[in-house]
Amino acid sequence: MSPQERYGTQFGPDITFLGVPRCTWSDPSTYADADVVIMGAPFDGGTSHRPGTRFGPQYIRQTDYLPHDGSRPSLALRVDGLRDDLTVYDAGDVQMYSGDAERSVRDLQEAVYTVTANNAIPLILGGDHTIAWPDAAGVAQHLGQGRVSMIHFDAHADTGNIEFGSLIGHGQPMRRLIESGALRGDRFLQIGLRGYWPGPETLDWMAGQGMRSYEMTEIVARGLEECLTEAFSIATDDCDGVFLSVDIDVCDPGHAPGTGTPEPGGLTARQLLDSVRRIAYELPLVGIDVVEVSPPYDHADITSALANRVVLEALSGIARRRNGTPWDPRRPLLDR
Amino acid sequence: MSPQERYGTQFGPDITFLGVPRCTWSDPSTYADADVVIMGAPFDGGTSHRPGTRFGPQYIRQTDYLPHDGSRPSLALRVDGLRDDLTVYDAGDVQMYSGDAERSVRDLQEAVYTVTANNAIPLILGGDHTIAWPDAAGVAQHLGQGRVSMIHFDAHADTGNIEFGSLIGHGQPMRRLIESGALRGDRFLQIGLRGYWPGPETLDWMAGQGMRSYEMTEIVARGLEECLTEAFSIATDDCDGVFLSVDIDVCDPGHAPGTGTPEPGGLTARQLLDSVRRIAYELPLVGIDVVEVSPPYDHADITSALANRVVLEALSGIARRRNGTPWDPRRPLLDR
Amino acid sequence: MSPQERYGTQFGPDITFLGVPRCTWSDPSTYADADVVIMGAPFDGGTSHRPGTRFGPQYIRQTDYLPHDGSRPSLALRVDGLRDDLTVYDAGDVQMYSGDAERSVRDLQEAVYTVTANNAIPLILGGDHTIAWPDAAGVAQHLGQGRVSMIHFDAHADTGNIEFGSLIGHGQPMRRLIESGALRGDRFLQIGLRGYWPGPETLDWMAGQGMRSYEMTEIVARGLEECLTEAFSIATDDCDGVFLSVDIDVCDPGHAPGTGTPEPGGLTARQLLDSVRRIAYELPLVGIDVVEVSPPYDHADITSALANRVVLEALSGIARRRNGTPWDPRRPLLDR
Amino acid sequence: MSPQERYGTQFGPDITFLGVPRCTWSDPSTYADADVVIMGAPFDGGTSHRPGTRFGPQYIRQTDYLPHDGSRPSLALRVDGLRDDLTVYDAGDVQMYSGDAERSVRDLQEAVYTVTANNAIPLILGGDHTIAWPDAAGVAQHLGQGRVSMIHFDAHADTGNIEFGSLIGHGQPMRRLIESGALRGDRFLQIGLRGYWPGPETLDWMAGQGMRSYEMTEIVARGLEECLTEAFSIATDDCDGVFLSVDIDVCDPGHAPGTGTPEPGGLTARQLLDSVRRIAYELPLVGIDVVEVSPPYDHADITSALANRVVLEALSGIARRRNGTPWDPRRPLLDR
Amino acid sequence: MSPQERYGTQFGPDITFLGVPRCTWSDPSTYADADVVIMGAPFDGGTSHRPGTRFGPQYIRQTDYLPHDGSRPSLALRVDGLRDDLTVYDAGDVQMYSGDAERSVRDLQEAVYTVTANNAIPLILGGDHTIAWPDAAGVAQHLGQGRVSMIHFDAHADTGNIEFGSLIGHGQPMRRLIESGALRGDRFLQIGLRGYWPGPETLDWMAGQGMRSYEMTEIVARGLEECLTEAFSIATDDCDGVFLSVDIDVCDPGHAPGTGTPEPGGLTARQLLDSVRRIAYELPLVGIDVVEVSPPYDHADITSALANRVVLEALSGIARRRNGTPWDPRRPLLDR
Amino acid sequence: MSPQERYGTQFGPDITFLGVPRCTWSDPSTYADADVVIMGAPFDGGTSHRPGTRFGPQYIRQTDYLPHDGSRPSLALRVDGLRDDLTVYDAGDVQMYSGDAERSVRDLQEAVYTVTANNAIPLILGGDHTIAWPDAAGVAQHLGQGRVSMIHFDAHADTGNIEFGSLIGHGQPMRRLIESGALRGDRFLQIGLRGYWPGPETLDWMAGQGMRSYEMTEIVARGLEECLTEAFSIATDDCDGVFLSVDIDVCDPGHAPGTGTPEPGGLTARQLLDSVRRIAYELPLVGIDVVEVSPPYDHADITSALANRVVLEALSGIARRRNGTPWDPRRPLLDR
Repeated sequence: MSPQERYGTQFGPDITFLGVPRCTWSDPSTYADADVVIMGAPFDGGTSHRPGTRFGPQYIRQTDYLPHDGSRPSLALRVDGLRDDLTVYDAGDVQMYSGDAERSVRDLQEAVYTVTANNAIPLILGGDHTIAWPDAAGVAQHLGQGRVSMIHFDAHADTGNIEFGSLIGHGQPMRRLIESGALRGDRFLQIGLRGYWPGPETLDWMAGQGMRSYEMTEIVARGLEECLTEAFSIATDDCDGVFLSVDIDVCDPGHAPGTGTPEPGGLTARQLLDSVRRIAYELPLVGIDVVEVSPPYDHADITSALANRVVLEALSGIARRRNGTPWDPRRPLLDR
Repeated sequence: MSPQERYGTQFGPDITFLGVPRCTWSDPSTYADADVVIMGAPFDGGTSHRPGTRFGPQYIRQTDYLPHDGSRPSLALRVDGLRDDLTVYDAGDVQMYSGDAERSVRDLQEAVYTVTANNAIPLILGGDHTIAWPDAAGVAQHLGQGRVSMIHFDAHADTGNIEFGSLIGHGQPMRRLIESGALRGDRFLQIGLRGYWPGPETLDWMAGQGMRSYEMTEIVARGLEECLTEAFSIATDDCDGVFLSVDIDVCDPGHAPGTGTPEPGGLTARQLLDSVRRIAYELPLVGIDVVEVSPPYDHADITSALANRVVLEALSGIARRRNGTPWDPRRPLLDR
Repeated sequence: MSPQERYGTQFGPDITFLGVPRCTWSDPSTYADADVVIMGAPFDGGTSHRPGTRFGPQYIRQTDYLPHDGSRPSLALRVDGLRDDLTVYDAGDVQMYSGDAERSVRDLQEAVYTVTANNAIPLILGGDHTIAWPDAAGVAQHLGQGRVSMIHFDAHADTGNIEFGSLIGHGQPMRRLIESGALRGDRFLQIGLRGYWPGPETLDWMAGQGMRSYEMTEIVARGLEECLTEAFSIATDDCDGVFLSVDIDVCDPGHAPGTGTPEPGGLTARQLLDSVRRIAYELPLVGIDVVEVSPPYDHADITSALANRVVLEALSGIARRRNGTPWDPRRPLLDR
Repeated sequence: MSPQERYGTQFGPDITFLGVPRCTWSDPSTYADADVVIMGAPFDGGTSHRPGTRFGPQYIRQTDYLPHDGSRPSLALRVDGLRDDLTVYDAGDVQMYSGDAERSVRDLQEAVYTVTANNAIPLILGGDHTIAWPDAAGVAQHLGQGRVSMIHFDAHADTGNIEFGSLIGHGQPMRRLIESGALRGDRFLQIGLRGYWPGPETLDWMAGQGMRSYEMTEIVARGLEECLTEAFSIATDDCDGVFLSVDIDVCDPGHAPGTGTPEPGGLTARQLLDSVRRIAYELPLVGIDVVEVSPPYDHADITSALANRVVLEALSGIARRRNGTPWDPRRPLLDR
Repeated sequence: MSPQERYGTQFGPDITFLGVPRCTWSDPSTYADADVVIMGAPFDGGTSHRPGTRFGPQYIRQTDYLPHDGSRPSLALRVDGLRDDLTVYDAGDVQMYSGDAERSVRDLQEAVYTVTANNAIPLILGGDHTIAWPDAAGVAQHLGQGRVSMIHFDAHADTGNIEFGSLIGHGQPMRRLIESGALRGDRFLQIGLRGYWPGPETLDWMAGQGMRSYEMTEIVARGLEECLTEAFSIATDDCDGVFLSVDIDVCDPGHAPGTGTPEPGGLTARQLLDSVRRIAYELPLVGIDVVEVSPPYDHADITSALANRVVLEALSGIARRRNGTPWDPRRPLLDR
Repeated sequence: MSPQERYGTQFGPDITFLGVPRCTWSDPSTYADADVVIMGAPFDGGTSHRPGTRFGPQYIRQTDYLPHDGSRPSLALRVDGLRDDLTVYDAGDVQMYSGDAERSVRDLQEAVYTVTANNAIPLILGGDHTIAWPDAAGVAQHLGQGRVSMIHFDAHADTGNIEFGSLIGHGQPMRRLIESGALRGDRFLQIGLRGYWPGPETLDWMAGQGMRSYEMTEIVARGLEECLTEAFSIATDDCDGVFLSVDIDVCDPGHAPGTGTPEPGGLTARQLLDSVRRIAYELPLVGIDVVEVSPPYDHADITSALANRVVLEALSGIARRRNGTPWDPRRPLLDR
């Protein structure tokens, strides 16, 4: 593969995530020192209902009232996960043509693989959840089939087989990942499922794969913290790294209205941010995606702002994990 | 009463709740095998403030991103409360003329009574809360005055006497039900009250009736689960069935903005869904209404989606109760 | 081709255009007496910017405050183009998978061809403008290559060659139609172009094809009526019928905000309705599509309502043309 | 009738139209010197579709970015129709219970009659169009049956007979006015009709009454100015005064989205304001209502702002007419 | 200072908070018996991002579906904090010119000081948080420098030094208060901080002042109730009164979207209301402000409604504290 | 003045107008070949009502569905006014602190003057209309007092004297320009005035200055084209250049809802674009501003899109004027 020109962003002005420096994914020399490389995947051709996630990358990158100066010192963790304590680049978007899911998925996997192979953590901004297939498969392509576990926040299992006559879509990526051998079903941890999909047949398939899916009634009955701790121990058992996939619809529609298939009864924004922080701080993340933010259905940008913070909590957690100092959430802010 | 032609829906296209089969309330032969008959009551002439609930039935019926195929297998309860494990029909709307509350209320009670008398549970989609009077009175007309208890989710007591010079309105149905003898005041359980209405005089009347009203500070201080358990024991004491009336404004405006008289500080959507599931699973429901969804004030359909799920949780709970197998919310999804 | 089961609608409840009767496009016996068959093409995978037109068919079908009774007597034309003076069916949607433009386009053309071959006028509700290719090509497949002229209302020429690496998309259908020989470039009449696209190269290609494109400054300077009259004479010169393609963005964004690529400075809603009425009354229409209505970007349903009326004006005009009585817009309403 | 206490406003804070002084309609001593008395009629129980006009009076009164100081010097007419050149009071609302159309209509007529009988022009802020019945009937009750002509701006004829089983509603006021003898059918001038309602039977009834209805195609073909001039001559033929009823939906939904039954293809805001100015300046107005403003469906208050300006144009026109100086719209502003 | 004429409200109609009586801040005789005087400070010139809080006073005053009758009996506390159990006036707005922060701040401090000096508690409706400087400084001007502690609900510390080249702005009031000596840094209690601002330098300054800031991870880990109890003991140590400053953005954007700098992961509306009730009931409040409500970014008025209830909870708590009877939130509503 | 570092944009990501190259206003070497230099002035501290124009520069720069590639070939004029036929830079924003109007105005004038003095046409993106003072004064500072005429599109005269106690604000810039001698009153052409402001005293002052203000009734009565032609001849009489100031509220709120003080009855978007094209093509422009776009009040970005096109029409007109070929709007697009 020869280096290409940087593509930039597919929609709107050519911006980067809160102003971090640019790089070109196909030219590793442009991010040789990177800890994390952010990429946009503005694809919404795979959604089964409300589209709009093609504008997810733009809005996740830009929705913040603070100066877009490439720096974000975390109050909670007392690190700057965007500049001082982590090296982060934004490679722009991988061109997605929503009318051609197959090509889009193929091109994205190549980009994710390239970044991983060059020792950076890929952080992909969706787009609909279709992209989780190339995202996690691209990471596994380098780290080894079955060597990466998955922590998957979502209202939906995304383990459908065929939808609208296609194997590719936002309801099926997890099935494709397991069926292809990229990820092991018994290292697949799902948090926040609820509602009325999928049906028994698919649930049986999931059980057969050894998946561990935490439906919301279990989470409420046992407590989110306990469920997470249990999930963490599975995720780190005989795997070399963890991929974190955050579908913003894991949150209640009151906290995240701007999404395609909102399912009432989800996590609060606070719960999601606290969970992502724990994961990034406690687990060896090797890839991340944040998906299903649909700005046309948002109000006052609250969903985009939440997704922006999910990214920052993940980066801050990674940074704090790397600097090696212990962290206690009970300590007063001004003592941390 | 002779069978009439099916009225259909009063506003918009003639749809049914997520595609369940049609029936005609006045012709019991069309729903002889029904467990539940859904009816719309698109009345908003009784609201004291923001109108719009006339579109509640349409939006509650249609707001779901899944196929409208008349089937909804519940992840939480592992039953299909819409098709496989319960027989549900949609009778369309009872014509409501918002400019004539008296006639609307009278016609609705007849429809509810007819459904009940033919051994189906009526599930009425409001409309403003005015309709709780004919809804519960119609059930009691068949089951017996004072034989039905009420579990009433709401930010407001709805026990006003006269508003805008009228005995009929969305702030008064509970008073009419008790005063008429249809329901007993001391089997009236209210969950979620808060705010600044009604005043002392009405509260004294309520106390005099023996009502049990759980205001939000009590619910927060004692815990919702404990309050519900206590309420359940009252509701089932010397009564033959329970009517469940869910005013969507029991939820916080952040979770349910699309309503007429939003009162900050309410339940989360999650709490409401968990409560409704418990009620339908643990108690002998004989009638249900879901009211005060006002689509013009909604955003991204989140309030309508919540109300749609309230209906489905109720149906799923009834279905699981009927199939008789025990249910433990702590069990993993894929083991249920 | 063997008759298939009716597909229904792809999104939301299974409704028809204002309640007209259902038919199945693949089973001509279900619409043997049809004058017009309506079909939805809920495809938005081809849009270059804001998506959402997949919900166009649903909203165009249902956005009307009058009863959905399958009847609409026109005040302007004094005919009922939905029932009494024309026979209209709704075949539901042709399944479109937005992630696979190629398959979607192929399937749609087959449906349009089938309807045309069975002597009904196809009226397709988009969807983005990608569908104009299969729409007009399907008609030409039956009536003969180059035998159908096109009147095309749009802010954009839609004559691009390749966008996002694809030949198929909402900016290219008109080029595909001409390049494939389905339509003649010199019988292509475009009304309402404006703005800053396409560039000189594409304009040169258009000129080379003999297209006649009325940009808005010409329309303002000469008057819309004069331009239309001129266009009509070209459209009916050595052609057997006229296809009418209405991109709702031909109207000013103030009149049609709910669209994907709004270009300021367009026609008023009144001008569009008057034009469509003239066309349907004066010209031999053989196919119609109404595209680019994007409900997520609409407000108070005004764009959907306008598109609904575009359909009704076309149907009313066809009906009045067929009944053969002369019509004078200057006559008082109560004398018509 | 004995004077009652002032009712104030039914919804929200007790404000007056842009700060004009308060009066009590039932106590004529409070407005003895009035030229015009404004009253709100916040009734939306009669609407056949989207409600919300109950908030019309509040929003029409308050939607203006200028200080609410009870003064508005008109640029176009160079008079202050709110204070210096006309004496205007605001009587607050007449209590409307939307759940009881009959009582609401009866109480409103009494208020309008009282104001008229005390030599002030009533200007009623709706509310849905149901109120035109009591509005114009109240004026005729004093001035004499058949002595008042009507100029009626509307997309709809509002001459229905029975809707939803009721004689009272927003689609029927004009029929009630004519049937009751309050107004003469042949002095009924309708401007702006369009769309698909009512059907032939009702149109025949209208023709039988001698009504003169200007449908939009006639207005476009002949020009609005010519139509108005023709209508004025009918309106002033053997009548003692003119009632002006402005349904905001006469304007195109692009200019007035906040209404209940928007019909595409209407007048521009500019055309409506120019027409109202002409009417108030050229004709002897004896009553006015401005109806069908539905704030829940508005955006950025543009519909409320338009209705506010309709009121001000009417008042300014009356003021200029009374001061007797000739007015030429072609004269430069700074020469007027 | 000589009494001036009452200014009224700066924007929109001249209303008072839910209809309480008017007073003039510069004329103490108009509020001689006041417990609390409400004032609006419609200033948004100091915001660093989304403006709109200039309409905060109008919307906080008017957003309530109940009659605006100057009375609000609290269900939770069984007192009427607006009329029967507390004497409350509304002085209208202090004129704020957003283009001149310096003058605005100076004029507001004078008004607050005057009210305090006349023995009423000032309750200021913002406006952006810039106003906390004059608000608390005005109170301290009378009660003594360093004699008033601060409980500050906010997502942000608001302890910036210079922003956009100015010492005055909504990110700096707390620094100005401490630097000027008006308040002691070690009696400054901040609740709800989170996110990515300010940076280390400012945090060091805060630590140096002895501030106690409860970041959200601490609040989640320890529990809000425990944190509040601890904060209360600091606030009442060697101080004569407590100022309560509530920035509505302390709540999660799902509960309070209508604000300028929304930071995901905040308190629920319920938590804020419960906290304010406790504070007003348990602590000796000497001043209150409620700020950062930005109606242009609100939906269905839910943020304004929340702020209205924050005011009412504070007033109700003060009233209950004054009547001296003990209060137990666990007691049933109808026994309180 | 020594060159400073480029400031970038004050809010959001650092973008330029549709991707044109960056320059630094204080370093003329960065735009030595410029025809036009775009600058943002994100100031909304001077607005008398709805704020939000601080986001005008961001939204005007970015609201376009086409690629942000720094090129825009005009269909109407067949030139590329952004790249091929004109050299355009974007200098980013001049920092505006809305809380300090005086400083903001002073800094902006220096920037405008500098650009003008270096032979580029300044094109300023507002911000509220306050900025017209420094904009036009900065140009006159170089070209000479009284040597520049003004064409001013607006609903409002903006000739107020003192508002909210200040000489600086969005209702007063035109008075300041004339009083300071920067512009001559008798070369001041105002187009589109209407409504109820200012009052007689200010109108008298305007008449005394010899201003020529075209109120909308005159424009409707005489025709916009005729009025423009007349205005052009005044503007070019004994002046060396023309400043064009476009307040987006000159358009009807239906076309431009996103503004602070919307006045019904304005121009259509089409009329404004046609007028701006004529002006840029026919007159010697020396400066331009486009102001009062308030994104928080916009819907579907239609107002921002209109303002973006106003800029492009101006640039295209200048480019076509410079290339010297005659232009006829009546010529077919493909012949131009």
